[in-house]
Amino acid sequence: MSLSSPFPTIREIRDAIRGGTRTVEQTVQQAFDAAHRMQPQLQAFIHLPPSPLVNRADPDAPLAGVAVGVKDLIDTADMPTAYGSPAYEGRRPEKDAWVVARLREAGATVLGKTVTTEFAWRQPGATTNPWNRDHTPGGSSSGSAAAVAAGIVPLALGTQTFGSVIRPAAYCGVVGVKPSYGTIARTGVLPLSGSLDHLGVFTTNVADAVHALSILAGTDPDDPHASHSNRQGKDPGNATKRPPRIGVLREQIGGPVDEAQQHVLSQLALRLRADGAEIVNADLPVELADAARHAAVLLAVEAALTHGELIDRSPAMVSASITALVEQGRALPATEYAQAKALQVQMALRFDRWLTETAGLDALLVAPASGEAPRGLDYTGDAAFCTPWTFLGVPAVTLPVGFGPAGLPLGAQLVGASRCDAALLSLAKWVEGRTGWAAEVASR
Amino acid sequence: MSLSSPFPTIREIRDAIRGGTRTVEQTVQQAFDAAHRMQPQLQAFIHLPPSPLVNRADPDAPLAGVAVGVKDLIDTADMPTAYGSPAYEGRRPEKDAWVVARLREAGATVLGKTVTTEFAWRQPGATTNPWNRDHTPGGSSSGSAAAVAAGIVPLALGTQTFGSVIRPAAYCGVVGVKPSYGTIARTGVLPLSGSLDHLGVFTTNVADAVHALSILAGTDPDDPHASHSNRQGKDPGNATKRPPRIGVLREQIGGPVDEAQQHVLSQLALRLRADGAEIVNADLPVELADAARHAAVLLAVEAALTHGELIDRSPAMVSASITALVEQGRALPATEYAQAKALQVQMALRFDRWLTETAGLDALLVAPASGEAPRGLDYTGDAAFCTPWTFLGVPAVTLPVGFGPAGLPLGAQLVGASRCDAALLSLAKWVEGRTGWAAEVASR
Repeated sequence: MSLSSPFPTIREIRDAIRGGTRTVEQTVQQAFDAAHRMQPQLQAFIHLPPSPLVNRADPDAPLAGVAVGVKDLIDTADMPTAYGSPAYEGRRPEKDAWVVARLREAGATVLGKTVTTEFAWRQPGATTNPWNRDHTPGGSSSGSAAAVAAGIVPLALGTQTFGSVIRPAAYCGVVGVKPSYGTIARTGVLPLSGSLDHLGVFTTNVADAVHALSILAGTDPDDPHASHSNRQGKDPGNATKRPPRIGVLREQIGGPVDEAQQHVLSQLALRLRADGAEIVNADLPVELADAARHAAVLLAVEAALTHGELIDRSPAMVSASITALVEQGRALPATEYAQAKALQVQMALRFDRWLTETAGLDALLVAPASGEAPRGLDYTGDAAFCTPWTFLGVPAVTLPVGFGPAGLPLGAQLVGASRCDAALLSLAKWVEGRTGWAAEVASR
Repeated sequence: MSLSSPFPTIREIRDAIRGGTRTVEQTVQQAFDAAHRMQPQLQAFIHLPPSPLVNRADPDAPLAGVAVGVKDLIDTADMPTAYGSPAYEGRRPEKDAWVVARLREAGATVLGKTVTTEFAWRQPGATTNPWNRDHTPGGSSSGSAAAVAAGIVPLALGTQTFGSVIRPAAYCGVVGVKPSYGTIARTGVLPLSGSLDHLGVFTTNVADAVHALSILAGTDPDDPHASHSNRQGKDPGNATKRPPRIGVLREQIGGPVDEAQQHVLSQLALRLRADGAEIVNADLPVELADAARHAAVLLAVEAALTHGELIDRSPAMVSASITALVEQGRALPATEYAQAKALQVQMALRFDRWLTETAGLDALLVAPASGEAPRGLDYTGDAAFCTPWTFLGVPAVTLPVGFGPAGLPLGAQLVGASRCDAALLSLAKWVEGRTGWAAEVASR
């Protein structure tokens, strides 16, 4: 398939529509045509309407003419929402999810529903990696990452419970942002684990993500888990003028990474240092090593609450991986869950203090995945490089920074303090200009 | 013992000290003398220093000269804190609890540590009811309620996990306030159940409670459970000028109440109606009937986390009631706890909407207990009339309103919407002037 460049960014679309050189209909139609053209090979969408359902918004609306891919875990009143599960095939929500309503109010057009793994867990859909169709795009937000990477849409919505925004973004070579826990209300989004679920965005550049998040951030009383603590980060936003201070972990959390992944991270750190950043070797507080284990407890128990009944009723409609997860959750004692729940809040506090006070860092620079997207479509890759940050609820951004030996993208993940999303995104924008990604792509 | 009247209120103490007619030392010494004089019969204190540890504050400090009883579940650096348990006898905290530090900053003197039941659960201490020493003062904040009722201190701190502020306040004939969940940071307070624990205050009148809460309300990052949701009530505060609209439940939540208790509630409602309030019969949403059951799950599991290790190590140091609670918590499956935890947030939201929108009420007027304090000191009474409101995290105030057949006080509980504490307290002050309590006391 063609990775036709340049893909229009959200900003370019806005400028064209406001300047009168393009109409809302034209930009949406272009996305629609691209989606249909690439669908046979890319399989980014699980539902594409027969003709574009153009949101005929005020051309001055902030997302007028922007076609958006919406993960099929997120309710849409005008399109089916089946959660990647045959058990829900043809399900038609009564109303839009909160975040979809926000998108439409801002003038965006929902182009179609993007492929999710079953219930945002492991069982993959049919989406392929736009850079090489023999490789996974990552999951669970497979279709959203692929649709942005293929230039079909400049914006797509995903969810992350372990690593489902950051990992597919890294595998597909796009920007992925998982904002702080609770930043975007999840009303109308199927939970996998209410204590861990985040809504996030895929874009081709950081500025577009900032723009989208400025529209999508908000709470809703019907999203009761919108905040698991009263912590309010003191977000320094863009105000910081001193050189950024970035931590590099002596040992990657999540396990060892491929040589090529380590190489691009090291090269990036050198470049950032050359451009004035302070790069500091850092060791996470030891108790954070248990984060992934506690996240697994929260996930299993909460998934059992959401999906247990379906499994009891229609076991044949549910994959072995979800069934195993639910069984695991049902077997756990309450004290273990309660402890994980309490430790989540305590560790988040501990991490924020460590990052901002003890280590005095603006962000950590870490691997978003072990390396390139694995070959094959049966396995969407290891989330271990994301799970701890998801558990902590801290903001994370991945940027495409280079290519690995298989010719697939490699990313770099920046992780900040809770609720300091604006500061992290501002730093990400600064880093983005130094990755060399655009030159790498142009030279291919 | 003598219920010598008039007990000085916080306001009177402030006026006297600022006016120069009394000194900080004098007012504290008076409380100290009263505490020692009544201690043999009342047993309100588990620790009273040999001489008063006067906080020689600026006389203009808002609590200068105010002696405070602090429940022995709350850490004090200058006095032992043993949680009502022989296992912690002689324990000396390294630092003050957050709320004690606040008290001292405001000029208050910690007079002594008041008796708590073991770990704020059921095993009672030695405190007697100031109105009749053959009756329980209620629990778990037994000593705090008794010390205020006996006129020793104008302010005491308690905690409520099920009904441990409201019930002893009602039994002892004082004002008890359990503010919204998270209003007063609990750092340095032994948890019984982090999802349910509230700090609250005992005073002789509503205005003193409002003054104390204005000083004590605040969050602390080390109290990680300070808020279980992002809900922010739209507190109308004192602004409301229309007649208050008060709901009376057709069926008391918690079970049937004694005839005398029902009578004082009905009489109060008639009086409030005569003075302009709208009194409305109301039925709670049916799903709230399960609140107490879910609260019991949260309590048992979280108590198991806090106390399980002690029971394994030193079973003989722990009462049968705590042991049974921990065993119950350890036997529960994680899914049941997770469901209770999720329902807590959902029900709180549901209740707030029902109260303020569906029923359009400013508050509910309900029984704080089944009636007068039970005879005997082995049983601190039934918390069922408080547990649902504690589970929901909504503010609750009890006011003394009359006497029952045994000559013991009866209270009336007002319950408001989450985070609308100022509005509820304002209403409570209006109600307080109409209870006839002062005349009842004077006529005895």
